Amino acid sequence: MSNDQIPGYTMGEDSVQEASISMEEFEQLKQSVMFTEEDEEYLQEAGDILESQIDDILDVWYGFVADHDFLVYYFSQPDGEPIDEYLDRVRDRFGQWIRDTCDTPYDEAWLDYQFEIARRHHRTKKNQTDDVDAVPNIDLRYVIAFIYPITATIREFLDDGEHDSDKVDAMYHAWFKSVVLQVTLWSYPYVHDGDW
Amino acid sequence: MSNDQIPGYTMGEDSVQEASISMEEFEQLKQSVMFTEEDEEYLQEAGDILESQIDDILDVWYGFVADHDFLVYYFSQPDGEPIDEYLDRVRDRFGQWIRDTCDTPYDEAWLDYQFEIARRHHRTKKNQTDDVDAVPNIDLRYVIAFIYPITATIREFLDDGEHDSDKVDAMYHAWFKSVVLQVTLWSYPYVHDGDW
Repeated sequence: MSNDQIPGYTMGEDSVQEASISMEEFEQLKQSVMFTEEDEEYLQEAGDILESQIDDILDVWYGFVADHDFLVYYFSQPDGEPIDEYLDRVRDRFGQWIRDTCDTPYDEAWLDYQFEIARRHHRTKKNQTDDVDAVPNIDLRYVIAFIYPITATIREFLDDGEHDSDKVDAMYHAWFKSVVLQVTLWSYPYVHDGDW
Repeated sequence: MSNDQIPGYTMGEDSVQEASISMEEFEQLKQSVMFTEEDEEYLQEAGDILESQIDDILDVWYGFVADHDFLVYYFSQPDGEPIDEYLDRVRDRFGQWIRDTCDTPYDEAWLDYQFEIARRHHRTKKNQTDDVDAVPNIDLRYVIAFIYPITATIREFLDDGEHDSDKVDAMYHAWFKSVVLQVTLWSYPYVHDGDW
């Protein structure tokens, strides 16, 4: 699937607002999660390994959500009915998110898009992209909590039998850093002015 | 050092307000970071291993902060001067935080205290405990970003040569889950009403 076939995916498009922080501030955030140029290379290698497994990875993550009603809730109408079309459209973008996470170095378009992803989780823009009437906000506590499952479950997919465990660990840690970095950016619209 | 000798440490005291969520909501958060009773046991074992190394761990974490001016900033006066007494008092509590992280299961007093820790990072209560005039808020982006260094740096301390790597990994993942869980709770006072 090429990028322009992914429903609602707009990285690099003019419609995406500029990031709320400068590249210099982004650099400090990278330092605070110990993210280096080596991690950029490890993520590129991870991307090559993960590409053919994206559907399987999404099955694991969607399975985890499906197992918990209080998580399915965020893809549901306020009366509690999950919205299949919404789940499907998000799934395509979630697959692309794996590619974008591994497509380093992160440039301004990438940084801008993190703030767009943030708005789409937050009530600022939730549901608009997919024109659905789901609950109005993904509560921040689950956005942060998801750092664990989204990180821990990736390791088995990186361990494809063709890389030694040190290399798998290096890719895994680069992924871990990137997930923390991104969730940090996604918290932006939830937070009181001046507190972020 | 016994608990009542740690400056400003008040877990279990009447002065600590009740948590902003119920134990049932806390249970859902634990599920969302895949935290189980096994993790409680692994954390207890981790606590035994880490106890004698707490000072060394704090040296690593304080060293990481010291290496980055934009992090030292949060322990500094608005004019930029780091406050040594503040750093020292926080250090004692940070050591106790390692013990408390490993002192499972987490009860109501523990949960209440997470929200107290949150307020002490946020401008709600920052600086009050230590009666200092440092900058008024630890910005949330660095609270979240710290999930990585506080997690990744612990593994070498868990690997004491007396446990096989599977056991070390299990303790390490229990620690990782707990750090994500706690940072999630600490984000509470930063967030707009109804968005958390």
